[in-house]
Amino acid sequence: MYNPQLNQQGELIHLLTTEGLPRRILNQVLDRAAEFVAQGAEGNKKFNHLAGRSVFNLFFENSTRTRTTFEIAAKRLSADVINLNIQASSTAKGETLLDTIHNLEAMGADLFVVRHAQSGAAHLIAEHVQPGIAVVNAGDGRHAHPTQALLDMYTIRHYKGDFTNLRVAIVGDILHSRVARSQIHALTTLGCPEVRVIAPKTLLPTGIESLGVHVHHDMREGLKDVDVVAMLRLQNERMSGAYLPSTQEYFKHYGLTPEKLALARPDAIVMHPGPMNRGVEIDSAVADGDRAVILPQVTFGIAVRMAVMNIVAENQARR
Amino acid sequence: MYNPQLNQQGELIHLLTTEGLPRRILNQVLDRAAEFVAQGAEGNKKFNHLAGRSVFNLFFENSTRTRTTFEIAAKRLSADVINLNIQASSTAKGETLLDTIHNLEAMGADLFVVRHAQSGAAHLIAEHVQPGIAVVNAGDGRHAHPTQALLDMYTIRHYKGDFTNLRVAIVGDILHSRVARSQIHALTTLGCPEVRVIAPKTLLPTGIESLGVHVHHDMREGLKDVDVVAMLRLQNERMSGAYLPSTQEYFKHYGLTPEKLALARPDAIVMHPGPMNRGVEIDSAVADGDRAVILPQVTFGIAVRMAVMNIVAENQARR
Amino acid sequence: MYNPQLNQQGELIHLLTTEGLPRRILNQVLDRAAEFVAQGAEGNKKFNHLAGRSVFNLFFENSTRTRTTFEIAAKRLSADVINLNIQASSTAKGETLLDTIHNLEAMGADLFVVRHAQSGAAHLIAEHVQPGIAVVNAGDGRHAHPTQALLDMYTIRHYKGDFTNLRVAIVGDILHSRVARSQIHALTTLGCPEVRVIAPKTLLPTGIESLGVHVHHDMREGLKDVDVVAMLRLQNERMSGAYLPSTQEYFKHYGLTPEKLALARPDAIVMHPGPMNRGVEIDSAVADGDRAVILPQVTFGIAVRMAVMNIVAENQARR
Repeated sequence: MYNPQLNQQGELIHLLTTEGLPRRILNQVLDRAAEFVAQGAEGNKKFNHLAGRSVFNLFFENSTRTRTTFEIAAKRLSADVINLNIQASSTAKGETLLDTIHNLEAMGADLFVVRHAQSGAAHLIAEHVQPGIAVVNAGDGRHAHPTQALLDMYTIRHYKGDFTNLRVAIVGDILHSRVARSQIHALTTLGCPEVRVIAPKTLLPTGIESLGVHVHHDMREGLKDVDVVAMLRLQNERMSGAYLPSTQEYFKHYGLTPEKLALARPDAIVMHPGPMNRGVEIDSAVADGDRAVILPQVTFGIAVRMAVMNIVAENQARR
Repeated sequence: MYNPQLNQQGELIHLLTTEGLPRRILNQVLDRAAEFVAQGAEGNKKFNHLAGRSVFNLFFENSTRTRTTFEIAAKRLSADVINLNIQASSTAKGETLLDTIHNLEAMGADLFVVRHAQSGAAHLIAEHVQPGIAVVNAGDGRHAHPTQALLDMYTIRHYKGDFTNLRVAIVGDILHSRVARSQIHALTTLGCPEVRVIAPKTLLPTGIESLGVHVHHDMREGLKDVDVVAMLRLQNERMSGAYLPSTQEYFKHYGLTPEKLALARPDAIVMHPGPMNRGVEIDSAVADGDRAVILPQVTFGIAVRMAVMNIVAENQARR
Repeated sequence: MYNPQLNQQGELIHLLTTEGLPRRILNQVLDRAAEFVAQGAEGNKKFNHLAGRSVFNLFFENSTRTRTTFEIAAKRLSADVINLNIQASSTAKGETLLDTIHNLEAMGADLFVVRHAQSGAAHLIAEHVQPGIAVVNAGDGRHAHPTQALLDMYTIRHYKGDFTNLRVAIVGDILHSRVARSQIHALTTLGCPEVRVIAPKTLLPTGIESLGVHVHHDMREGLKDVDVVAMLRLQNERMSGAYLPSTQEYFKHYGLTPEKLALARPDAIVMHPGPMNRGVEIDSAVADGDRAVILPQVTFGIAVRMAVMNIVAENQARR
């Protein structure tokens, strides 16, 4: 099946979604990231892989946190980094998205990191960039946020060694999450035998079962004996109204407390993509507890983004 | 005649306007740019010419595109780049423009890239900076946008070899354009025998003929047998009202369509400074056609800005 | 007495306030800065002290000028610099300040430059960062702005050689100034025998005498025979209303004019932290006169910030 992320040799040339990425590629990213983590542990944070290359952070919607992680990762690889907040720029002057992209290509871009509110924006760009230029999706609509999913996989592999015996529960706002769908695809590909999603009906997309997951509306039931609890962030604007009765109600049923976490396996890890809403989706006792691996996730996230940029740029340069 | 852009040896130490720049200097910039283009074609994009130097992008009005081109150019030359959006900064606190400039000098600036809504702002700054510090005008009022004019000259020379037999038509909003005036001066200096301007009366400055150009109100007449069509961008805020009846009317009379372009020479090139308003000043069939050199202009623009910064910094350092 | 800025060996590991810093440390910073100034005078502006290190400029309130000075200083030391305007970022999403900090730590920050409207914010951060990470206060509330005070000390030492025979007058809005309090502490520690503060009663904090300063409400009296006049900036929003009758009145009584300056010693220097309100707290004839050292202050400020970042990073790395 045609996958625009891979070249004819099956090498990764763009990262758009974890959907359809073979296990071989996922492992290549995780292995490369592991090298950067190991170097970092010895105090080596700066590399030359992207020296002389230009990385453009194209943020069509604001996300300081995500932009920062990519900026750091690119600078550690010695790239020249250009941050572009595109709302304020040419598209406001009536230029089309593709004209903007082609202009930036002509300026000598080697790699675009793209964040866009609309699903498929990164795909559209990847389809139209010149050969030799890589596109990395930093989150588009509700669709995909593949580097987040990959850093979650890295974290799980780091703490659990291997995916083939794991029960993973993804908890919270599955419906609006950029992350959940990407996680499910990656977990399945990496051989995780049991992925559960735990959410109220109003925060579940219809047909989620078709991805092979087990749906739970009762969090206590869903957490039973899991090895990994992957919490999702609840968006402020969804904390009451059509989706939810109230923050208090949500916390009561779906907030991760020590008492609920006790139902998981004793060595279960707790992940969260940040920023956390303490007291809404997660209790501070859990967030700051010894089962939380939320800050290591951030550290691994830099290494994973370095790995992705390194791999796609390398494969593009060989074209 | 005194020219604040040149030192006593006649070397370029600031770039403020193409007006009054001798052909020797224009060719020096184009030749230096050609070296960067040639290196770029071989994959060498990073140089050390400005290593250890500080380039300040002083943008007193927002222009992400122009700022980006200078930022990239400076980073390719290994400068430290500081972006300053000055609206939000000290001048808002009542500090004068020159106090701001003297402060930035004292911080160790080597080169100022200045974008300002008022004509003459870059000149004022160049008059008052310390010896050793270069000023490059990135567009001031309706007056000048010299690096844009220089990249247009580079583009013409690249495709046409030489200026001495060319007919060039500049089309559109001459009145409000930062670019048109700079283009006319550069073309004349480089020996172009025939420069035409094509525009409705409401978009022509009075006395434009004194620059030695031929004025046409009928686009079909004006395009006849030209070698180069230099389109200008129509500003949104001028698309109707005092200046123009309507977008549709404008496109009918002054939009570049394949049919109108057919009146030019068969090998005529089409330029546009971007961002384009497709369907207003230019038809997509032309913008995406094989006569358009709009994206190469962008690529050459980076090289031209590198050349300018390299030359003025070099000459300032020798002072 | 426990000082969170010093490690157990008494070395500087954070710079939060000049209060409580021993003379030995102040002199270490000034001496290190002198080395950078000397190198700069020979055209050497770029150093490798922070190569491979990540400096995060965390600005919780906007201050382009201060941010720029730290950005330049960090880049001259070859650090990777990440600018974060935190208002627009995660804290707006409900994340706590400390969660934000811990996230940035996990991304690999080596040094935080912190600007915050609330007194004590930098202290709070310094208390909670991981060992190995340095915090530099770039101004918090009315409390402290230690690098500004240190650059003032550098300037005084540069022009006066030594503090032990000096009379220094600090003039203006002592009440709201981040700078005055830091200056007083540093001057006292460095052995300055006489520090005067000159201000209307409405712009003086109660109990200022407890810091050992002499209070003057009459500027002419206060300036008599001083060696150094340290002007403070008057905030626009305080130029009339509860604090002051009017700008004109203020200038009449507390504006530094040549006539008032004539009461100081003939070789007195005039300092100002910028940006100046000409005609409000300072007359242009003084600001541009030969006693003003306002622009050298800016130059020294870069060197002092380089020195501070260099020292704290070095001491943190040795931990």
